[in-house]
Amino acid sequence: MTPARRAVRVFAPGSVGNVGPGLDIMGMAVAGAGDIVEATVAERPGVVVLDAGHPELPREAGANTAALAAQAALRLAGGTDAGLSLRITKGLPLSGGQGGSAASAVAGAVATDRLLGLGLSERQLLEAALAAEACVAGWHLDNILPSLVGGIVLIRETASYDYVKLPVPAGLRVVLAHPAQRLRTAEGRAVLPRELPRDVALHQAAQVAAMVLAFATGDLALLRRALDDRIAEPARAPLLPGFREAKAAALAAGALGCSISGSGPTAFAFAESAAAGERIAAAMRAGYAAAGVESVTRVADVSRQGAQVLEGPA
Amino acid sequence: MTPARRAVRVFAPGSVGNVGPGLDIMGMAVAGAGDIVEATVAERPGVVVLDAGHPELPREAGANTAALAAQAALRLAGGTDAGLSLRITKGLPLSGGQGGSAASAVAGAVATDRLLGLGLSERQLLEAALAAEACVAGWHLDNILPSLVGGIVLIRETASYDYVKLPVPAGLRVVLAHPAQRLRTAEGRAVLPRELPRDVALHQAAQVAAMVLAFATGDLALLRRALDDRIAEPARAPLLPGFREAKAAALAAGALGCSISGSGPTAFAFAESAAAGERIAAAMRAGYAAAGVESVTRVADVSRQGAQVLEGPA
Repeated sequence: MTPARRAVRVFAPGSVGNVGPGLDIMGMAVAGAGDIVEATVAERPGVVVLDAGHPELPREAGANTAALAAQAALRLAGGTDAGLSLRITKGLPLSGGQGGSAASAVAGAVATDRLLGLGLSERQLLEAALAAEACVAGWHLDNILPSLVGGIVLIRETASYDYVKLPVPAGLRVVLAHPAQRLRTAEGRAVLPRELPRDVALHQAAQVAAMVLAFATGDLALLRRALDDRIAEPARAPLLPGFREAKAAALAAGALGCSISGSGPTAFAFAESAAAGERIAAAMRAGYAAAGVESVTRVADVSRQGAQVLEGPA
Repeated sequence: MTPARRAVRVFAPGSVGNVGPGLDIMGMAVAGAGDIVEATVAERPGVVVLDAGHPELPREAGANTAALAAQAALRLAGGTDAGLSLRITKGLPLSGGQGGSAASAVAGAVATDRLLGLGLSERQLLEAALAAEACVAGWHLDNILPSLVGGIVLIRETASYDYVKLPVPAGLRVVLAHPAQRLRTAEGRAVLPRELPRDVALHQAAQVAAMVLAFATGDLALLRRALDDRIAEPARAPLLPGFREAKAAALAAGALGCSISGSGPTAFAFAESAAAGERIAAAMRAGYAAAGVESVTRVADVSRQGAQVLEGPA
């Protein structure tokens, strides 16, 4: 196989997994921050990580999500003796709940595909990224998928990669509040109940359906009523000092809803406008501060675009 | 309070509760068959049933759903010493899974309101009908609501009567197949699991959301993929001889999906056109017949209209 280029750089945006009641089945790409993977052709076969992007991230290809995704992409292309080197630039926090591992995996898969001209399909790129994500966060598409394709997505069925991309209501902004804490996805998953009372499960189903309808029709009042997660948030909130205070502050400041991004610790809120977003962000910082927790916030658009090749010099 | 009329007749359509994965939270009014309640002013206060519409239905006001709803309507109007008599005409089968008790309750509430000019709100009518329905079928709006307001509905929250009416895709037809069997709602509910594995609950939530989106956008291919109930149907199918055969036949004949209407025994299927509906109906009869079960079928529109006053002579 002849490399398509000598080097390629791919950006993949961060994302909010779960999106409130949408545990494992809804995700949303967030504009602004993301991870970048630069892939270059190497002489020796296989994948090498030259820079993991953070001193705490592994450089071993068998433990690095970008490299795992690159290896899976090579396998899905039918196996090749191509060699490539990766340099990762982390724009997303580690164990922050902003889809950092998924973004690195997606960028790793797409960079490998573009560098070597593998011609992988969207589904194969998802498979490659999921093979990596599964090692650190479980077999879930709710970060991988929006990071690759952008927007707000409903995953109808993970096994068949069947999803629907939802319209993004005009004016909608996402507020992310990142408290000075880390929470490994595995910890955030361990506290989820394995069994659910039927009425809780059915209530959650109704909320997910109502949220999806709210996005489809731009009905923000419905979104406000539907963002009511009774499965993941009650289980995870006790692990997250300051979350309850920050959520109460966000709602008091006019947020359309507020919940935990992925398994946390980042909290997200929906705002009707950029100005409302700034007010809500300030309220959330004050909420965390009242609980003795420092936090940083940002107000962003939903990213309509997913992963993309960056042109021009690094 | 002065009666608005001396007599009034109200028709309320039958309905499909649950609508596949939408256990307790989705319902759909079906055109054609329904129950009629004729209310007339009586001299003695209270509610009397002159004709229950079927020899097996109770004439005691405290056990008849139309009368229970009439009594609840009087209470919600602030209590009155009005007297009224009810004559019920059952167009829906008993214990058939076609929303017969709900239709009688809705017609009873609406007839009482119109007869006496009570001026009850939609929510009060729902409350009155639900008070009756709860005695026979549980605290669920999935038949009551479509029978009152028509269409296909998502119930976001039962406690607050918060719902959304969904668009009905053009051409969509409903096939109802009624096997020669009865199943009391209480029996159909008793077999439902009280606790659900988390992955089953989340899969179901994704299906409900995808179905709602399919109706909202007219995406019948998505409807076909999403009509996959892994909670109620697997629990109830063993109670329903011939259902599995009828469902397989419906799908083979091109149905967009097939499941149990309410808690059964009626099965429903979605068809893309009236002609497809007839083919599917024939296939379902043959499926039941192959299992030694007689059945009757009909092909109907979703009823955009809910309960309505019938004008003219009875």
